Amino acid sequence: MGLTIGVDIGGTKIAAGVVDEEGTILDTHKVPTPPTAEGIVDAICAAVSEAGKGHQIDAVGIGAAGYVDDKRATVLFAPNIHWRHEPLKDKVEQRVGLPVVVENDANAAAWGEYRFGAGKGHEDVICITLGTGLGGGIIIGNKLRRGRFGVAAEFGHIRVVPDGLLCGCGSQGCWEQYASGRALVRYAKQRANATPENAKILLALGDGTAAGIEGKHVSAAARQGCPVAVDSFRELARWAGAGLADLASLFDPSAFIVGGGVSDEGELVLDPIRKSFRRWLIGGQWRPHAQVLAAQLGGKAGLVGAADLARQG
Amino acid sequence: MGLTIGVDIGGTKIAAGVVDEEGTILDTHKVPTPPTAEGIVDAICAAVSEAGKGHQIDAVGIGAAGYVDDKRATVLFAPNIHWRHEPLKDKVEQRVGLPVVVENDANAAAWGEYRFGAGKGHEDVICITLGTGLGGGIIIGNKLRRGRFGVAAEFGHIRVVPDGLLCGCGSQGCWEQYASGRALVRYAKQRANATPENAKILLALGDGTAAGIEGKHVSAAARQGCPVAVDSFRELARWAGAGLADLASLFDPSAFIVGGGVSDEGELVLDPIRKSFRRWLIGGQWRPHAQVLAAQLGGKAGLVGAADLARQG
Amino acid sequence: MGLTIGVDIGGTKIAAGVVDEEGTILDTHKVPTPPTAEGIVDAICAAVSEAGKGHQIDAVGIGAAGYVDDKRATVLFAPNIHWRHEPLKDKVEQRVGLPVVVENDANAAAWGEYRFGAGKGHEDVICITLGTGLGGGIIIGNKLRRGRFGVAAEFGHIRVVPDGLLCGCGSQGCWEQYASGRALVRYAKQRANATPENAKILLALGDGTAAGIEGKHVSAAARQGCPVAVDSFRELARWAGAGLADLASLFDPSAFIVGGGVSDEGELVLDPIRKSFRRWLIGGQWRPHAQVLAAQLGGKAGLVGAADLARQG
Amino acid sequence: MGLTIGVDIGGTKIAAGVVDEEGTILDTHKVPTPPTAEGIVDAICAAVSEAGKGHQIDAVGIGAAGYVDDKRATVLFAPNIHWRHEPLKDKVEQRVGLPVVVENDANAAAWGEYRFGAGKGHEDVICITLGTGLGGGIIIGNKLRRGRFGVAAEFGHIRVVPDGLLCGCGSQGCWEQYASGRALVRYAKQRANATPENAKILLALGDGTAAGIEGKHVSAAARQGCPVAVDSFRELARWAGAGLADLASLFDPSAFIVGGGVSDEGELVLDPIRKSFRRWLIGGQWRPHAQVLAAQLGGKAGLVGAADLARQG
Repeated sequence: MGLTIGVDIGGTKIAAGVVDEEGTILDTHKVPTPPTAEGIVDAICAAVSEAGKGHQIDAVGIGAAGYVDDKRATVLFAPNIHWRHEPLKDKVEQRVGLPVVVENDANAAAWGEYRFGAGKGHEDVICITLGTGLGGGIIIGNKLRRGRFGVAAEFGHIRVVPDGLLCGCGSQGCWEQYASGRALVRYAKQRANATPENAKILLALGDGTAAGIEGKHVSAAARQGCPVAVDSFRELARWAGAGLADLASLFDPSAFIVGGGVSDEGELVLDPIRKSFRRWLIGGQWRPHAQVLAAQLGGKAGLVGAADLARQG
Repeated sequence: MGLTIGVDIGGTKIAAGVVDEEGTILDTHKVPTPPTAEGIVDAICAAVSEAGKGHQIDAVGIGAAGYVDDKRATVLFAPNIHWRHEPLKDKVEQRVGLPVVVENDANAAAWGEYRFGAGKGHEDVICITLGTGLGGGIIIGNKLRRGRFGVAAEFGHIRVVPDGLLCGCGSQGCWEQYASGRALVRYAKQRANATPENAKILLALGDGTAAGIEGKHVSAAARQGCPVAVDSFRELARWAGAGLADLASLFDPSAFIVGGGVSDEGELVLDPIRKSFRRWLIGGQWRPHAQVLAAQLGGKAGLVGAADLARQG
Repeated sequence: MGLTIGVDIGGTKIAAGVVDEEGTILDTHKVPTPPTAEGIVDAICAAVSEAGKGHQIDAVGIGAAGYVDDKRATVLFAPNIHWRHEPLKDKVEQRVGLPVVVENDANAAAWGEYRFGAGKGHEDVICITLGTGLGGGIIIGNKLRRGRFGVAAEFGHIRVVPDGLLCGCGSQGCWEQYASGRALVRYAKQRANATPENAKILLALGDGTAAGIEGKHVSAAARQGCPVAVDSFRELARWAGAGLADLASLFDPSAFIVGGGVSDEGELVLDPIRKSFRRWLIGGQWRPHAQVLAAQLGGKAGLVGAADLARQG
Repeated sequence: MGLTIGVDIGGTKIAAGVVDEEGTILDTHKVPTPPTAEGIVDAICAAVSEAGKGHQIDAVGIGAAGYVDDKRATVLFAPNIHWRHEPLKDKVEQRVGLPVVVENDANAAAWGEYRFGAGKGHEDVICITLGTGLGGGIIIGNKLRRGRFGVAAEFGHIRVVPDGLLCGCGSQGCWEQYASGRALVRYAKQRANATPENAKILLALGDGTAAGIEGKHVSAAARQGCPVAVDSFRELARWAGAGLADLASLFDPSAFIVGGGVSDEGELVLDPIRKSFRRWLIGGQWRPHAQVLAAQLGGKAGLVGAADLARQG
C-alpha cells in the first residue's frame, strides 16, 4: 500500500495529512472544527478530500477522542463531541469512497511514536500522553492492543487516589487529575496562593494573580528557576513516575514514551519523571528497567499514527 | 506433543503432575518442600522423576513464585526461596533430561484457567489470584503476555493507596495489602477488636480472641451471617472490584477470572466483587462490560497451566 | 441581664429573635437577605429594630459564616458575603445603640446546643454541624473556645484525604467534602449513575435522572429503604464517624453533638455515625467513650446561641 | 509551694528531679528502668526518695506514656509497660508520703515548654513532640487541657491517610506513622533502597546497607547535604506541617512548639515544617498565623513539666 491519510480532530482545527510509508507527511489540510457533531463529520470529509487532491490515496485513518469499538468503526462515546454510538467509519467511507479506520486518538499517537518516533526498535512499548488530560496506548508484540471491546489503554482513568479529586468522567482520583497539563496548572495556582513570595517569576508572566496562571507560564517560569514552578513540575513528575511504576508492574515494557504538550518541556519534566519512576518501581534491583523516553513526533504523532494504522488495514 | 509434567512449588509440598492435552492430571507425586534453595531444586527433580514413571513425558513446566526472566529459564528473584538469578531451567534440564520451561506461578495458573477452566473461549482474559497475596496473569490475543523482561502481571503491587500499608516488597499501598487473604483476616481482626459484640460467631470459631482469627474462621462465620465477617468480605470486595475496574480501563478484557483460596468461597466473595467492579467501572454505560468469573480449577490451575505451557514450548 | 437578640444570617433570610435567659425565643423578625455586603448590614439593623420592638433588649449577638476575629468585632473573611475585615460590631452598634457581639455561626450554634439543647450538663462538648458544608464549635471547661485569633473550630477543613477532593477553600481533601449534605448528594448521584437499578426509589422522587437528585430525595428514599440512598448515608457516616474519632483523640469531650440539616434525619444518620465512630476510636477498650448525641434545637441553635453569647458579654 | 519532684519514665532510665518555681532542676537521680510493671513502681519511689534527700519537697509529678485518667491518678493503659488501670498515684503516695500527680508524659513536656521554654508568654499553645512516635499537649487559656476523661491531645493517632500505614495502636494511617523519628528512618531506608547512588553519604555513616540506617545517620547525612537524607527530612516536614495546619484549623493557637528528638536538628527540620505548614494552612491570607517554634528544654521538658504540674496541685 502507498499513501494514506491521517485525520486529527482537535478542539479548534481538524487536520488531514497525506502520509507515506516512512511516516512522512507529504501534504496537510486543516479546517476549523465545527460546533456540531454532524458538522464535524462533514469537516472530516472535506479535509480528507482537500488533502488528498493530487495524491493516490489508499485508505483513511481517523483519530478520535473517546471510546472506539473493537471493529474500529463506531465511536461509542466521545467526551467533547456529542457522538454516542456514532458510525463514523460508515459515514466517512460513504462520502470519501475510501476504506476508513477509526482509532482512539491516544492509541493513534502511540502507534505513530512506536512506528516512526521514540519507539522504533521496541516490541513492547507503553506511551502516555500528558496533554490537558492523560491518555496513552499499548503496544505488545509489535501490535497495538485495543482490548476485547476496543477501549483499552484508558490510562488517565485508573484510580491513583481513593476518594480523590473529582474527574470529568464522574469518578474520583483518576490519574489524569494528578498527572496532566491541567494538574500542573492547579499545582502552580495552589502554591502561588500559599506562598506568593516564591512565585514572583511565575506571577509576573501572567496577569499577576494566581487565578491567571496558565500552563505556558509554568513552563517558562520553571526554565527561569521559579521555585513554585519547579516544584509544580516536580509534583506532576511525582505522580507521573509513580503511575509509570504501576504500568511497569502490569505491562513490563522495554520502554515508556512520554508525549503530549507537557512533555514538550523535555528534560525539565522527563528527568524528574524518571527519578520518580525509579523511586516507585517495585523490585527495581532484580529486574531490567524500562527506559523512559521523550516522544519525538510532537503534535503530529496522532495524525501519522492514524494514517499508518489505516495502511496496516 | 503428548504428556507433560507440571510442577507446583508450595510452602509445604512440591507437587509434580502428569498432564495430558486436555488438561487432565493423570498422575501426581508430592514431596515435602525442603528448607534450602538447593534442596528445592533436588526435590523438584525427584518429584518429576517419580511422577513421570511409566509415562512418556515430552517436557516439564515449573511454576515458581517470583520474577522469571524473559527466556523462562532463570528465576531473577523469589520472595520465599533464596533464589537470586537462579538458572532453574538449566539445572533441572540437566538432571531430568527433558526440556524445561519455568514460569511465574500466577502466570501458570492464569494459563491453566484460560485453557481448561473459566477462560475457555475467551481471547483476552485477566486472571487474578486472591491467595495469601494477590497475583495474576494476562492473556491477550490467546497468548500469555509476560512483558519484555518476563515480569509483567505483578498485579499485587500496583499502588492503590498512596502512602498506604507497608508491603513485603518494600513499597507502600500495594493492592495485595487490601485485596488478599491476609487483608481479609486483618479486616476481621480490626472489626472484631472495635465491635466484639458483632463478632460473636466469628470469635467462637477460633480461640475467642481477635488476634486468633484465621481466614477459615472468617469464611465460616460469613456463611453463618456474622456481621463482622460479612463486612470483612465486603471490604475485601470493595478493593478487589475497584482494582478490576482499573484493569478494565487498562486491558479491556472480555473476562476477569478470580481464583485463589479466597475465591473458594464462591458467590460469597464473587457477588460483592462484581458489584464493586460495576460501581467503579469508568464509562460503564458506554462500553461492553467484562464478565467477572470464578476460577474453576482451584489449586490445580498452576500445575496444569505449567504443564500446558511446557507443551506449547 | 434580661433579654437579648440573636441574629442568624441565612442565604435567603436574615432572622432576628428576642431570646430570654432560658433560651426561649419570644419574638422573631425576618427580612430577605440583600445581595450586597452593605445591604446586609442594613438588613441586620432593620431586623434587630423590628424584632426588639416592645422589648427591653440588653445586647445583640450576630452569628456570621466565616472568620470572626478574637475581639468578636470584625469579620475577617466571609465565604458567601464580600466581607473582608468588615467591622460589623462597630457598624451595628452605631446603628442600633446596643452592645453587639459577633460570632462565627457554627460557634453560635454550638453554644446554643451546649446551653439549652443536647449539651446541657456537659462541660466539654464538641458540636459538628452537617449542613451544606461542615462546621462546628468547641466547648471546653464550660467556655466556648475560639482560639487565639478567633478562628478555631474550622472542623470542615481538616484534611482527611491527602490529595483528595477540591474544596471551596482552595485546599484538597477537606472533611466537609466527605461529610456534609453536599457530599451526601454526590454519593447518591455517583451510585445512581453506576447502578441505576438500585436507585429506583430515589430516582422516582426527583426528575428521574441522577443529575436531578437532591438532598431531600436521598433522605426520603433512605427512609423507604432504597439501597443507593441507604448506602449513601452509610458512606457519609463512615467519614463523619472517622472524623469524630479523630476529634476524640484530640479533645476527648464527654459528648459530641451532631446538628445541621443532615442530622434532621435522626437515627437514620446518627446510628451509622455512632458505629463508625466506634469502629475508628483509638484505644476504645481502655477509655470512656464520648456520647454521640443528636442536636435538639434544629435551625434555631445559631440564633439562640448568638443571643446567649451576647448576654454573657 | 516550694520544691517539687518531677519523674520521667524512659525506656532505659527513670529520672527524678527536684525542680524549683523557676523550672530549674536542682538535683537529679536516675535509676535503670526495671523490666516489670511492679518493679517500675518500686524504681519510681526509690528515685524520688534519693533525689529528694536534703530537700524540702512538697509534691511529686510523674509523667507516664499512655492514657492517664481525669483524676490524674490512674494509668488506664500504657503502651510499653503492662499497666492497665494502674492506681499509680495511690501506690506512690503511700510509699513516698507526698501528694502525687500523674500526667501523660507528652502533656507534661508540653506544660514544661509552656511554662519555662518556648511557650512563655503565650496563652494558647499546641506542643508536638516528634520522638520515636508523635505526642503532644494542649494549652488553652493558660491551662493544660486534658479532656473530659484525661486522654486528650493524642495527636499521634489522628488519621491522616485513610487505609494508610498500620500503627501500633491497631488503627491505620495515624499521623505518627508519617511524622516521627521512626517515619524519618523509614523514608531514608526506602529512598536509599530505590536510589543508593543518592545515599552514599548516608550509607557510609552506618553499616553500608539501607537496613542499617538509624536516625542519627539521617541527621548527620542531612547536615552534609546527602540528597536522600535531605529528602527524607523534607518528607517528614511535609506531613508534620500539614498536620499542624489541621491543628491550626481546630485550635487556632498563637504558637506551635515542636519538640522531641527529631526537633534537636533545629532549622534543618523546623524550616521545612514551617514551609509545609504555610503551604497547607487554610485561609492563610485572611488570618493571623501561629508561630512555629523550636522547643527549648530538650529532654528535660517532661520532668520539669511534671514537677510544675505537681506544684500547681
